Amino acid sequence: MKIAIAGSGALGCGFGYMMQKGGNDVTLLDFWDEHINTIKENGLSVTVNGKEDTINISIGKPEEIKDTFDTIFIFTKSMGLRHMLEEIKHTLTEDTKVVCLLNGLGHANTISEYIPKKNIIMGTTVWTGGLDAPGKTHFMGEGPVEVQNSDENEEEGTRQVVQMMADCGLNGVYSSNVHFTTWRKACVNGTMNALCSLLDCNIKELFDVAQIDELNQGIVSEFSRVAETEGVTLDVEETINYLKGIAEKVGGHYPSMHQDLKNKRPTEIDFLNGMVAKESERRGFEAPYSKQITQLIHAKEDILGIKS
Amino acid sequence: MKIAIAGSGALGCGFGYMMQKGGNDVTLLDFWDEHINTIKENGLSVTVNGKEDTINISIGKPEEIKDTFDTIFIFTKSMGLRHMLEEIKHTLTEDTKVVCLLNGLGHANTISEYIPKKNIIMGTTVWTGGLDAPGKTHFMGEGPVEVQNSDENEEEGTRQVVQMMADCGLNGVYSSNVHFTTWRKACVNGTMNALCSLLDCNIKELFDVAQIDELNQGIVSEFSRVAETEGVTLDVEETINYLKGIAEKVGGHYPSMHQDLKNKRPTEIDFLNGMVAKESERRGFEAPYSKQITQLIHAKEDILGIKS
Repeated sequence: MKIAIAGSGALGCGFGYMMQKGGNDVTLLDFWDEHINTIKENGLSVTVNGKEDTINISIGKPEEIKDTFDTIFIFTKSMGLRHMLEEIKHTLTEDTKVVCLLNGLGHANTISEYIPKKNIIMGTTVWTGGLDAPGKTHFMGEGPVEVQNSDENEEEGTRQVVQMMADCGLNGVYSSNVHFTTWRKACVNGTMNALCSLLDCNIKELFDVAQIDELNQGIVSEFSRVAETEGVTLDVEETINYLKGIAEKVGGHYPSMHQDLKNKRPTEIDFLNGMVAKESERRGFEAPYSKQITQLIHAKEDILGIKS
Repeated sequence: MKIAIAGSGALGCGFGYMMQKGGNDVTLLDFWDEHINTIKENGLSVTVNGKEDTINISIGKPEEIKDTFDTIFIFTKSMGLRHMLEEIKHTLTEDTKVVCLLNGLGHANTISEYIPKKNIIMGTTVWTGGLDAPGKTHFMGEGPVEVQNSDENEEEGTRQVVQMMADCGLNGVYSSNVHFTTWRKACVNGTMNALCSLLDCNIKELFDVAQIDELNQGIVSEFSRVAETEGVTLDVEETINYLKGIAEKVGGHYPSMHQDLKNKRPTEIDFLNGMVAKESERRGFEAPYSKQITQLIHAKEDILGIKS
C-alpha cells in the first residue's frame, strides 16, 4: 500500500516505521526542518518497545511531495489538523482513504470539509510514543488501533486498512462503534489530562484524592450529555469505573497535557472539555464544569507564556 | 475596656497590641504553647507598619483564664471558630460582646449557636499581618475595621466598640451594611484567593490572563445569587469591576490561600466557594463553578498531604 503519514511526531514515526517494515511504501510528511533533514541524512531511528532500529524512509514537507497516496494517516496535534488538510490536498486521489486516529472531539466534522465521507476512516489508538531528538523517537504498546469507515457502505476498504495494520504488527481492529470508543477516550483525556495538568500531579495522585468521584462526575456527566446528542450512549457510572480501571493500570504516569504545560506547549483542551462546553452551548444547555476547566487550563497556558 | 483576643495569630496580636497601647486591659488567648511561653517570658513583639515595639501583655490558654471580659475579638482561622467558641464559654458574661472579623461566610450562624444575638458584632477588616516567629508578628495597613451589631437594637454598644478602636488607631467605623461588605470581601477571596492558589500565580498574573472575566463571571454570579437570598444585593458587573480595582492596587501579591498551600496548611475554601456551593444546594439551585473550585482546592490539599 502506498501510504503517507501526515504529521511525523512520535506516533507518526512509530506508525510509519511499522508500516514500512511491514512491506508498504511509506512517506513521512512534516514541517520541522531539523527533523526532516536528520531523517533524510541519517535515516529514522525508532525504538519499539525497547528495541532500537534505524531505517531509510522517505520524508518531506507536503508542498515538496509530487506523489499521491492510497492511504494517509493523520498524526498532527488537534490544532494542526486543519492546516495539514489544506497542505495535503494535492496528494489525494478520488479514492485516497484518510485515517484519523487523533485524540479529541470534532475532528470528523473538520475532515469532512476537505475529504468526501466515503474516504474518511475514524479511529483510536492506545499506542504511545515520544520524540527523543530530531529523527529519533520511541514507540510503545501493543495496540489496538480501532477504526471504522464514516460511510457505512465503505466497510471493505476499511477492512483492507485493518488487515494491513494487522500484518504490520500494529494490531488493527475493525470497530463497529468507533464513535463510542472516541467519546470514551475523550472522557479519559477530559478528566485525567485536564485535572492532572491543573493540579500538577500524576494519575495515581489524582485518583487518590478524596474528591475524585465528584470531580469525574461533573465532567463525565457533561461529556455524556453531548455524546447522547450524537447518538452515543455513555453511561456515567460505567465510564467513571472505566476511568478508575485505567488509573489503576497506568499509576504514576503524567498525562500528555501535563507534559505539554511543562514543556510550554499549547494543550488540546479545546478539543476535549472545550468542545463539550462549546457543543453544549450550541445546543442550548450548560456545561459549567467543562467550561471552567477549559478556562483554567487556558489561564495556566497564559500564565506560563504559552502562545497558541 | 476589658478585652480578650480569641486566637492570637498575626491579626490577633496586632489588634491586641494596638488596644493595649490605647489604654485597654487586653488578654490574648491561644493554644500554641511555644507562642504563649515566649510572650509570657519575653513579651510580645509587634512591628506596626514597619515600627517595632515590645510590650508585656497577658496571654494564656482559654482554659487557664478565670476572668470574664467586656468584649472578645475572635481571630481564629475559619475552621477554628467553633472550637474557640466552645473554649471561651466560661469567660463570657450576659453582656460580653463578641466581635467577629473573620473572612468567609456563615460565621454569624455558627456564633449564634453560642452567643445571644444581642451580643454579636460582625465585621470586616483590611488590616493584614504575618507571624514571623513565636511571640513576634507584624501588622500592616490603616484599616478600616467596619462593624455592625447583629441585633438592630444594639447599635449603642457597638458604637462604643467602634469608638474604642478609633481611639486605638485601628480606624473603627460603624457600618450600616456590614453584610454587604462581608459578601463583597468573600467575592474577593472566592475569586483571587481560590484562582491564584489553583493556578499557582500572583494577583497580577491572574488578572492578566485572557480568561479572567469569564472566570470571575462564573464565580461571582453564584456568590451574588446566594447573597440575594440573604438580602444582600451584589451586582455582578459592579463586583467584577471592584475586583479589577483591587487587583490593580495589590499587583504582584500572593493571596493568603496561596501561602496556605505553599506552607502546607489547610485552606479556608469551605467558608468561601464551598459555603456558596453548600448554600446553593440547600436552596435547590446549582453552583457548579464554586463546587468545582472547592473540589479542586481540596484535591490540591490532598495531593500536598495537608490534613484538615
